[in-house]
Amino acid sequence: VVVIERAVRFEEVDAASIVFFGRFSEYAHEAMEHLFSRIEGGYPGLILKRRIGLPAVRLDVKFLAPLRYGDRVRIETTALRIGNRSATLRYRMFRAADGALSAEFDHTVVTTDLVSLESCDMPSDVRAVLEENLEREGAAP
Amino acid sequence: VVVIERAVRFEEVDAASIVFFGRFSEYAHEAMEHLFSRIEGGYPGLILKRRIGLPAVRLDVKFLAPLRYGDRVRIETTALRIGNRSATLRYRMFRAADGALSAEFDHTVVTTDLVSLESCDMPSDVRAVLEENLEREGAAP
Amino acid sequence: VVVIERAVRFEEVDAASIVFFGRFSEYAHEAMEHLFSRIEGGYPGLILKRRIGLPAVRLDVKFLAPLRYGDRVRIETTALRIGNRSATLRYRMFRAADGALSAEFDHTVVTTDLVSLESCDMPSDVRAVLEENLEREGAAP
Amino acid sequence: VVVIERAVRFEEVDAASIVFFGRFSEYAHEAMEHLFSRIEGGYPGLILKRRIGLPAVRLDVKFLAPLRYGDRVRIETTALRIGNRSATLRYRMFRAADGALSAEFDHTVVTTDLVSLESCDMPSDVRAVLEENLEREGAAP
Repeated sequence: VVVIERAVRFEEVDAASIVFFGRFSEYAHEAMEHLFSRIEGGYPGLILKRRIGLPAVRLDVKFLAPLRYGDRVRIETTALRIGNRSATLRYRMFRAADGALSAEFDHTVVTTDLVSLESCDMPSDVRAVLEENLEREGAAP
Repeated sequence: VVVIERAVRFEEVDAASIVFFGRFSEYAHEAMEHLFSRIEGGYPGLILKRRIGLPAVRLDVKFLAPLRYGDRVRIETTALRIGNRSATLRYRMFRAADGALSAEFDHTVVTTDLVSLESCDMPSDVRAVLEENLEREGAAP
Repeated sequence: VVVIERAVRFEEVDAASIVFFGRFSEYAHEAMEHLFSRIEGGYPGLILKRRIGLPAVRLDVKFLAPLRYGDRVRIETTALRIGNRSATLRYRMFRAADGALSAEFDHTVVTTDLVSLESCDMPSDVRAVLEENLEREGAAP
Repeated sequence: VVVIERAVRFEEVDAASIVFFGRFSEYAHEAMEHLFSRIEGGYPGLILKRRIGLPAVRLDVKFLAPLRYGDRVRIETTALRIGNRSATLRYRMFRAADGALSAEFDHTVVTTDLVSLESCDMPSDVRAVLEENLEREGAAP
């Protein structure tokens, strides 16, 4: 499991004064970029130099407790499933102050050639990072 | 079914040059605001005057075809399920030019008192709009 | 003068419950995209096919009255100045309900080759649209 | 001078593949929130508990060098001017890799009672933070 923590930003809340639900996708992506910071060149290198991306094909998100301005969010990232060309990442997002689970965000991505926008085999360094963070069945996260 | 169409905006794409997956939540919310424009005061009146909101508790999204800058997106909004205090909205998002289904976005919301952040009974005018747009089983959308 | 009007969106306000000041840049760009919708292929054609962009080099913005969720904003776009490779656009942004001037947003752009990121001569169709909307000195907007 | 450094995020670039100019306002606000993290309760406490905000009344921004995905940006925050109820903050934003000045962003704010949306006297702790970071004339930043 890889962990980041960051403050809720001033402009991330909506007219109901809680973090807009679309912002959780930005939090998820930030956690994923952090996860892949350990490959050579990081996620920017993958996207810009190797022209391989990980576009989302599926989201399955449960929102359990709202976040507000002034909160900090702790995001724990694991891999739920790793296939040949796809994987499911899970982000557990907690309110840092009280440890309440705010969202459980499952994000299925497909390794994709960004020139043709066709799926491609998962690069070995991407796979290695995912395998290192794979949730083992029955294991506590 | 209620339909809106809008252009992909210049800043909605990401470093892979396709619309960022988090932007689809903004498209979904825009379609929902449009759906509820037919209640008295619209969605702003519900939020700001009556202090009732519809925060998301669940998302289930399939991404099928990317959107790019220059595309227009047509969003068809229906209700999949209507409960006492919750409902699931479905947004089918199409690339307007070729009619390709870009995303199927299921959005479960709970009618919520924004002061206490507790769930509350669904207001009758909210329910009426949803029932008017309920998908009937076996029916083509 | 070219005019658009649009609703303030649910997620455009910040933790102070007014439209976040950075959002006015999105409003400005939306108005500029609309202005250039009258050239062949529109602004997307300019960016993606002709690979010419109009990046900002200067902003000069006065904020006069806040916008809130539920407001509509009317944006009047003119050209203040047209040079060989640059121009200054002015967006006057009004609260539609009471006509209050919310922001006066001056946006200086440089016509730029997006491959080299060097400035380039202003294309004639871009110039024609600007000249059509040039503010004449002493004239009321 | 107070300094933060952060990565350009995946979704912060636009269809021209450079950071969208509106994003610099988010960078500026992030730097301001960081600046005021040294007052009791931080900026969230000021906004949510004391109900005092610092809405922008003026921006004066020069863009000098583009930022791209993969860049890091270093932001140096100072106060240019401190009045009774207003102040001008300056954010110098640098590309961290080569030290190029990307933007010089002057941000004039007015201390404002968020209930009445009227200006109010600047709180002494806010003033103290600004004075600590005031640029002295003739001094190198």
